Amino acid sequence: MGCESAPDFGFNRNVEIFDSSLRDGAQGEGITFSVQDKISVVEALDELGVSWIEAGNPGSNPKDMEFFRRVKNIRLKYAKLCAFGATRKKGIKPGEDANVKSLLDAETEGVVIFGKSWDLHVTEVLRVSLEENLSMISETVDFFKQAGKTLIYDAEHFFDGWQANPEYALSSIKAALESGADRIVLCDTNGGCFPDTVQAGVEAVMKLAESVNRASVVVGIHAHDDAGMASANTVMAVKSGCRHVQGTLVGFGERCGNTSLAAVIPSIELKMGLRCLPEGKLSSITEITRRVAEIANVTVPGGLPYAGAHAFSHKAGMHADGILKVRKSFEHIDPALVGNDRRFLMSEVGGRSAIAERIKKFDPSITKDHPAAAALAAELKKLESEGWQFEGADASFELLVRRELRKYKTLFEIEGYRVVSEHPVGNNLTCSHAWVKVLVDGQTEIAAAEGDGPVNALDGALRRALKHFYPELENIRLSDYKVRVIDGKDATAAQVRVLIESTDGSSSWTTVGVSSDIIEASRIALVDSIEYKLIRDIERRFKEFI
Amino acid sequence: MGCESAPDFGFNRNVEIFDSSLRDGAQGEGITFSVQDKISVVEALDELGVSWIEAGNPGSNPKDMEFFRRVKNIRLKYAKLCAFGATRKKGIKPGEDANVKSLLDAETEGVVIFGKSWDLHVTEVLRVSLEENLSMISETVDFFKQAGKTLIYDAEHFFDGWQANPEYALSSIKAALESGADRIVLCDTNGGCFPDTVQAGVEAVMKLAESVNRASVVVGIHAHDDAGMASANTVMAVKSGCRHVQGTLVGFGERCGNTSLAAVIPSIELKMGLRCLPEGKLSSITEITRRVAEIANVTVPGGLPYAGAHAFSHKAGMHADGILKVRKSFEHIDPALVGNDRRFLMSEVGGRSAIAERIKKFDPSITKDHPAAAALAAELKKLESEGWQFEGADASFELLVRRELRKYKTLFEIEGYRVVSEHPVGNNLTCSHAWVKVLVDGQTEIAAAEGDGPVNALDGALRRALKHFYPELENIRLSDYKVRVIDGKDATAAQVRVLIESTDGSSSWTTVGVSSDIIEASRIALVDSIEYKLIRDIERRFKEFI
Repeated sequence: MGCESAPDFGFNRNVEIFDSSLRDGAQGEGITFSVQDKISVVEALDELGVSWIEAGNPGSNPKDMEFFRRVKNIRLKYAKLCAFGATRKKGIKPGEDANVKSLLDAETEGVVIFGKSWDLHVTEVLRVSLEENLSMISETVDFFKQAGKTLIYDAEHFFDGWQANPEYALSSIKAALESGADRIVLCDTNGGCFPDTVQAGVEAVMKLAESVNRASVVVGIHAHDDAGMASANTVMAVKSGCRHVQGTLVGFGERCGNTSLAAVIPSIELKMGLRCLPEGKLSSITEITRRVAEIANVTVPGGLPYAGAHAFSHKAGMHADGILKVRKSFEHIDPALVGNDRRFLMSEVGGRSAIAERIKKFDPSITKDHPAAAALAAELKKLESEGWQFEGADASFELLVRRELRKYKTLFEIEGYRVVSEHPVGNNLTCSHAWVKVLVDGQTEIAAAEGDGPVNALDGALRRALKHFYPELENIRLSDYKVRVIDGKDATAAQVRVLIESTDGSSSWTTVGVSSDIIEASRIALVDSIEYKLIRDIERRFKEFI
Repeated sequence: MGCESAPDFGFNRNVEIFDSSLRDGAQGEGITFSVQDKISVVEALDELGVSWIEAGNPGSNPKDMEFFRRVKNIRLKYAKLCAFGATRKKGIKPGEDANVKSLLDAETEGVVIFGKSWDLHVTEVLRVSLEENLSMISETVDFFKQAGKTLIYDAEHFFDGWQANPEYALSSIKAALESGADRIVLCDTNGGCFPDTVQAGVEAVMKLAESVNRASVVVGIHAHDDAGMASANTVMAVKSGCRHVQGTLVGFGERCGNTSLAAVIPSIELKMGLRCLPEGKLSSITEITRRVAEIANVTVPGGLPYAGAHAFSHKAGMHADGILKVRKSFEHIDPALVGNDRRFLMSEVGGRSAIAERIKKFDPSITKDHPAAAALAAELKKLESEGWQFEGADASFELLVRRELRKYKTLFEIEGYRVVSEHPVGNNLTCSHAWVKVLVDGQTEIAAAEGDGPVNALDGALRRALKHFYPELENIRLSDYKVRVIDGKDATAAQVRVLIESTDGSSSWTTVGVSSDIIEASRIALVDSIEYKLIRDIERRFKEFI
C-alpha cells in the first residue's frame, strides 16, 4: 500500500477532506454556533474547497434542523453537506427511529452514521448484544443506501476495539461494507492511539475490504489529539492508503480537539503530493482558518502548524541569519504556499509582499517596493503591537489603505460623547443612554438615544445625529459584535478588541476597534463601519466623478 | 529494536528527560525569563524529577552567566544542569574560542554542543568545508570530554541532512561518537519530518553506533512541532530505541514550539511502560506544567494533551453517559494518573447524569433521580434558552447548585450603580467612572472609582465598597474577560454573555453573566466571582461550624 492509488474526488482532488467543525467541533469547550454562524462557516469551507461539510445532528438539536432548512438556499461550489446520527435504536426498524428519520429530513447529499466497533461499548454502554449491534449497523446503512444517500460510515472507537477484540471490530466493519457503505471511516475516538497502531488498523481494514470484494471502497481516518498524535495519525493513515480525512479546520473539538485540517492538509499536499483542495486553494488556508476561528470566537493557537501566527516567526539571530542565506535552512516549507507570512521577531523585515498584494485592489501600480507599501507595513507593525488585528476586519483594513493612498476624506467627526449606564436604586431595570455631538462640513448636530446597553445607546445616538446629513444610514444594521481581551493580565483594564459586523441587507462588512475602554473600542469600530458604508455608496453613486 | 532495553538513569528512570524551556523554549514568541524566573523554573523541573535541565547559552547571553553563578547555590535532588553552545569556530582551537570557554565557566555537570549534520548548512550557512565541520565536531567534543564533562551532542537538522546526504550526515555523527560524546541527540530542527523518517533515521544511527563499538551510547530525540508531529516523532523514536527525550515542559519554543514534555511523558510512561520520572511524580505533571507556564507568563493551551484544562472535559451527553457507565469508554487514560480532573461541561448537549455527577461534590446522596437534580436540569434548560452557558463557568454553576440545595446565603447586595463613559469635547482622552452602593448585614456603603473602561471602573468601585466588610477581596485579580454576543441579529441590542476569570494567586475560577447590557452582564459575573471567593474562604476558615 502507499501513495500509488490517487482517485479523483472532483476538482482534481485525490484525498477527500471532510470538515466537522459544525458537529464534532461544536463539542469543543467554549464553542457555540448560532444558525447564522453555521451558514458563515459553510460558506468559508466551501470557498476553501473541502469535499464534505458535516453540518450537525438534526436528531439531537432543534437549532440544527432550522440550519438545514436555511442552508438549502446556499449554492455551494465545491462541498457537499452531511447530516450526522447514530445507527437505529435496538429492537426497531430504521424507518421507525425518529433520529434516523430526522437525517432524511435534513435533505443532505451525504449521511454519516456512526456505529460501535468496540465490544465493550456494545455490551456496557449501548447495552445490546454483539449480534444486535451488527444488525443495527447493516440495517441502518442499508436504509440510507435505499434512500439514495452517499453513506459515510464512522466506525467509532475502531482502533481501541480492534486492539481489544480484532475479530469483532472487523465484523462490524464487514457489516457496513456488505450493506453498501460508500466510505468506511476509522475513528480514534478517545485519541490515545499511536501511528503504528493506526497504520496496522488501516491495513487490516483494507485487506478486509478486498476479501469482501469492496477493494475500491474509500477508507477514511478520524483522529483526536489526546496524545498529541492527531496530525501524525492522520498523515500516516494516508500513507497506508486512506483517501478520506476527517477533522475540523482550526482543530477544535471534544477534549483536546480533533485533527486540525489546517495542520494536515499542507502536509498531505506538499509532502506527499496528494491533492486535498482544488488547485490554487492551498494558499488561502491560513486566511480561511483565521476566519472560521473568528466566527467561532476562538483564537487560532499561535503555534498551529502552517496557519498559526508564530508558525514562521524566527526569533533566534542564527535562524534569521540562516534564512536570509538559504530560505529552507530553517523553514520546512515556504510560508507563501499556505498564505502565511515569515516574520523576524527582532528585525525590520516584514511581510511586505502580502501587503502589496492587498493594496493592488485599489491601485495595481503599487508593488512591494512602492513607498506606500513600506509606509503601510510600518503602520501595520505599529498597530499590531498595540493589539490591532485586521485578519477579520477587511473594511477597517480598506480604510487604512485608503488613508495611506489619500483615497480618503473625513466625512464626519465626533466632537464628544457621553454614555451612562445605571441600575436605579429600588428598581430592577437597567438603563443606558448616550448623547453624541457630530461635525459635518462645518455644521454640528447633537443627538441622544436610549439603548439596551451602552454600545446600543451610543450607536443609536450616533446614527440619529448623522441621519440628518446621510439618510442612507437608516438601513445599516449591526449583525454581529465580538469582544476579545488582548492581554489576559489585569483583565478589565487590558486592551480590548471589538469586531463589529454590519449589513445593509445586501452585503456585510466587518470593522475593528482597539482601546482599553470597551466603549471607545466600540466607537472606533462603529465609526469605521459607517465611514466604509458611506464611501462605498458615494463611489457607486458618483462613479463618473472619481 | 524496541522497548526491550531499559537502562536506569538513576531514581529508576528508563528514559532521560531533558528540558530545554530555559534555552530553546526562550526562543518562543513572547517568552522572556528574568534570572529569578529561571531559578523558579529550575526548582519546578527538579521537583518534577527530570534528568537534565538545559539552562542557557552563556556565550550568547550575559544574563545567562549571572544565572549560572546564582544557580550553584540551589540544591537539586533529581536534575543535573547543562549549558548549551556551538562547536568551535573555524580555524581555531576549542580552547581559543570564547563561546566554548564560557561553557566551562558555567560549571555545569553537562555540556550540550550542537553541530551541523546537513551539508547544505555546512557550506551555505556556516560556510566552511565539509571536512572542517567534521574537525570542529570532533575537537569540540574531545575538548569537553578532556574537561570531564558529560557531553550531549545535538545533531542539528539531522533528519533533513540524512535525507539530503545520508553519508555525510552519518559521518558527522561518527565524528561525535569517536571523540567520546555521551549522548547523540538527533534533531528535527525545522520540525517538518514524519514519524517514518524519524524512525528510519534513529535506526540508522543505532546501527552506526554499533559499527564503531559504541552500541551502548544513549541516542536522543529533539523534535519541533511545525508539522504537528512533535509528540508522535518523539514517541516513535523511543519505540525505535531512543532513551533520551528533549523538549520543553509546556511545549513553547521557536515557531510552532518544541515537543511538549507534558504531552509525551505520560504516553511513554503509561502506554510504553518506560519510566521517565521518579516514582510517584507523574501525578504532579499537570500542576507543575501550569506552574512553569505561569512563570513564563503564558497560558497552558486548553487542548494540551494530558495537562490541558480541556483534556478530560466532556460535553456531548452521550460521552458523559458512557463515562458514567465505564470510565475508559471515552477516556484514553484515567486523568488522576497525571493529576488532572475529569469535567462534565454543562450544556444543552449534556444530560442529567452529568448534572448529578457535579452535584455529588456538595451532597453525595443526590443521584440523577433526586428532585434537586431534576429541578436543576429544568433551571439549566431555562437559563440556556436565555443565553446562559455554564460550560466554561464552573464557579457560577457551583453557586447555582448551592442556591438549589440551599447551601447559600446572600453575602451582599448591590442597591444601585451608575457608570459613565465620556469622551470630552476638545480633548482626546476617554474617561470612565462609576459609583456603587452596597448593603451588607443591614449596613450600606457607597464607593466610587475611575477606570480604564466602564467595567474596570465598576469593578474598582464595587471592591472598594466591599473591602470595608471583606478585606480578603484585596487579593482578587481578574485574569481574563470575554464577551460573546449570543444571537447575531441586532447585534448591539442583543443578549451578551460575559465570562470573567478571577484569581487570588493560588487558584482561579470563572463566572458568567448574561444581559442585553454589557455592563449589567459584567456586573452579574463580577458579583458571582466575589461571592464564590467569599464562600470558599468562609468554608475553609470555619469548616468546623459547617
